[in-house]
Amino acid sequence: MNIEVRPKPAGGINRSRLAIADCDIHHSPRDFKLLYPYLEARWREHLDLFGQRPRQGNANGPQFPKSQPDASRRDAWPPGGGRPGSDLDFMRTHHLDANNIELGILAMIRPHPGGYQNLDLSAALCRAINDWQVAEWTGPEKRLKASIVIPYEDADASVAEIERWVAHPDMVQILLLSRTVEPLGHRRYWPIYRAAAEAGLPIGIHAFGNGGTPTTGTGWPSFYIEDMIGHSQSCQSMVSSMVLEGVFAHVPALRVVLIEAGFAWLPSLAWRLDRVWQNLRSETPAVTRPPSEIIREHFWLTTQPMEEPDHAAHLADTIGWIGWDRLLFATDYPHWDYDDPQQALKLPTTPDQRQGFFLDNARRLYLGAA
Amino acid sequence: MNIEVRPKPAGGINRSRLAIADCDIHHSPRDFKLLYPYLEARWREHLDLFGQRPRQGNANGPQFPKSQPDASRRDAWPPGGGRPGSDLDFMRTHHLDANNIELGILAMIRPHPGGYQNLDLSAALCRAINDWQVAEWTGPEKRLKASIVIPYEDADASVAEIERWVAHPDMVQILLLSRTVEPLGHRRYWPIYRAAAEAGLPIGIHAFGNGGTPTTGTGWPSFYIEDMIGHSQSCQSMVSSMVLEGVFAHVPALRVVLIEAGFAWLPSLAWRLDRVWQNLRSETPAVTRPPSEIIREHFWLTTQPMEEPDHAAHLADTIGWIGWDRLLFATDYPHWDYDDPQQALKLPTTPDQRQGFFLDNARRLYLGAA
Repeated sequence: MNIEVRPKPAGGINRSRLAIADCDIHHSPRDFKLLYPYLEARWREHLDLFGQRPRQGNANGPQFPKSQPDASRRDAWPPGGGRPGSDLDFMRTHHLDANNIELGILAMIRPHPGGYQNLDLSAALCRAINDWQVAEWTGPEKRLKASIVIPYEDADASVAEIERWVAHPDMVQILLLSRTVEPLGHRRYWPIYRAAAEAGLPIGIHAFGNGGTPTTGTGWPSFYIEDMIGHSQSCQSMVSSMVLEGVFAHVPALRVVLIEAGFAWLPSLAWRLDRVWQNLRSETPAVTRPPSEIIREHFWLTTQPMEEPDHAAHLADTIGWIGWDRLLFATDYPHWDYDDPQQALKLPTTPDQRQGFFLDNARRLYLGAA
Repeated sequence: MNIEVRPKPAGGINRSRLAIADCDIHHSPRDFKLLYPYLEARWREHLDLFGQRPRQGNANGPQFPKSQPDASRRDAWPPGGGRPGSDLDFMRTHHLDANNIELGILAMIRPHPGGYQNLDLSAALCRAINDWQVAEWTGPEKRLKASIVIPYEDADASVAEIERWVAHPDMVQILLLSRTVEPLGHRRYWPIYRAAAEAGLPIGIHAFGNGGTPTTGTGWPSFYIEDMIGHSQSCQSMVSSMVLEGVFAHVPALRVVLIEAGFAWLPSLAWRLDRVWQNLRSETPAVTRPPSEIIREHFWLTTQPMEEPDHAAHLADTIGWIGWDRLLFATDYPHWDYDDPQQALKLPTTPDQRQGFFLDNARRLYLGAA
């Protein structure tokens, strides 16, 4: 038999006192990158590009591609410091002047505090952001108009915030995110729609957000790519909900803009809605005409990220179905998946179609221009 | 002041004992319809048609339209008794003979026990259903082939069930439902795909099921119509997951049939997948070619419920993109939203396209016919 030699405890152990076993001690690398020497190159590169993506994905926190920090174009970082999109002077030269932007609609999404669980914090931050937008952005720069961010999970507080801005010429839209606690057709959100219609402002619904349910109807996906794709599916559910719950019968003047959700999925969704509604319409008596008609009348869509099928004719068919008067050009500046106005809409078009797509549809919707 | 006269307790109270307040007593109408005299006509009709739909919707239980009991055509109830689809002799005359069905693929969904939480019960019921299918359906009726139902949340038990049927000529497909505990690209399901490819059988994924997450990425919808629409969105997420997780790089011979999920949404999904993958492909190194190519190669789709746009040309474009060799005609007999073969495919087509659509695509996929 071997005789077991028990190692001496390390220095500092006082044998005259009871020695302790502590079974939950937390250590941590001073910097996450100190783990890199222990990782294969493939995963170092992955982490630099996509971040760690804990469970529940991108929606749950700021896990944006690290090689495009802040999910932004590398050239969009202001030379004077600060995050992309945080320096008005730099945005003027880098984007507005360079791209001949006559009308720029600001859509605040980082942060958009509308989905925060502390409703009073949500409302307070929305008020602060709105005041800041007018004081520091639309006041000094007349090409820019802003969107009123609202604490959308609290309808009363949202209405109060909308009423604070009624008739303010710099506020041209009311901004929500698309993934809410319940689908956006539900009645808890109707006071917001009534207030929007009374104020004469469209509701802009920007893709993303997190209402607590998985991005997809089959659970949490693994990849950032799936987060990017999945938001167009949750927007399909959201459009179905708004149409079928009778929102537009209740608020006939409501106009809705879908922002950064894509648009090529809209025709097939409307075909399917029409067919099922024809068979089962008594379930939703507030919907008295085909869903496709309601969609054509009440929805606008921003163009970025524009779908790019192999055959441009397929895209032209899709836009024709949605309506050339319903698409609003958008770049998503300063984000990495930016659509360049010089490259967008590589299709045969009429001058009227291009004029509407790039400028006039937005002027009509947001400014009431003829 | 009024003098309060306390009513006497009703008969049976024994004042010599302590009288009791019981604060949780349950009563119930003998029959739910005894509440109808207290309801407006509109809601009586609604309940007859759609049932009660408790929270979490149709997916959570047998809440099918009551005026089409069992969600079935009224004329599909066998004269000799039993549920629609439960009487082989009646199905022969009422459907197979009447519609000249040469090959009928049985897809057992009521029940499909694959998502049950007790995994051993799930496996036992799947075994029973498969034995019953061969003994009582495909044995006596050679026009019918069956799908192996598997306990898909338990990959090992699923593989065992698939292996029990390898090379059985009546079993031509492995059947799952679309809404699973995790998206179907996840590795927990890969042993099923390997076993399917080894058995030379396609995986059929039928819309519906409930893995515990809401039907949509924005929460639980209110209407049966939304359940019908929402499943095509969860199938979009499911296709994205299978493509991006690298299932088809891992199992190159895998063939997947999407059943009752619609198909018109597939082109726009593929455009979006291609675009995002082009920008971010290093996140998914197992995906070495555009997602649209993978989809074109590995996916088939049944036709019911066929989208019916105003312009049939849009549907023809859509089918052209998916591939005329990839659609498999299906009626969904005996369910209420049945597609009649006499009415389907009202499009200009070539004889080859019709032959493939109505028969040969299925013969090639399921029977290996040239």
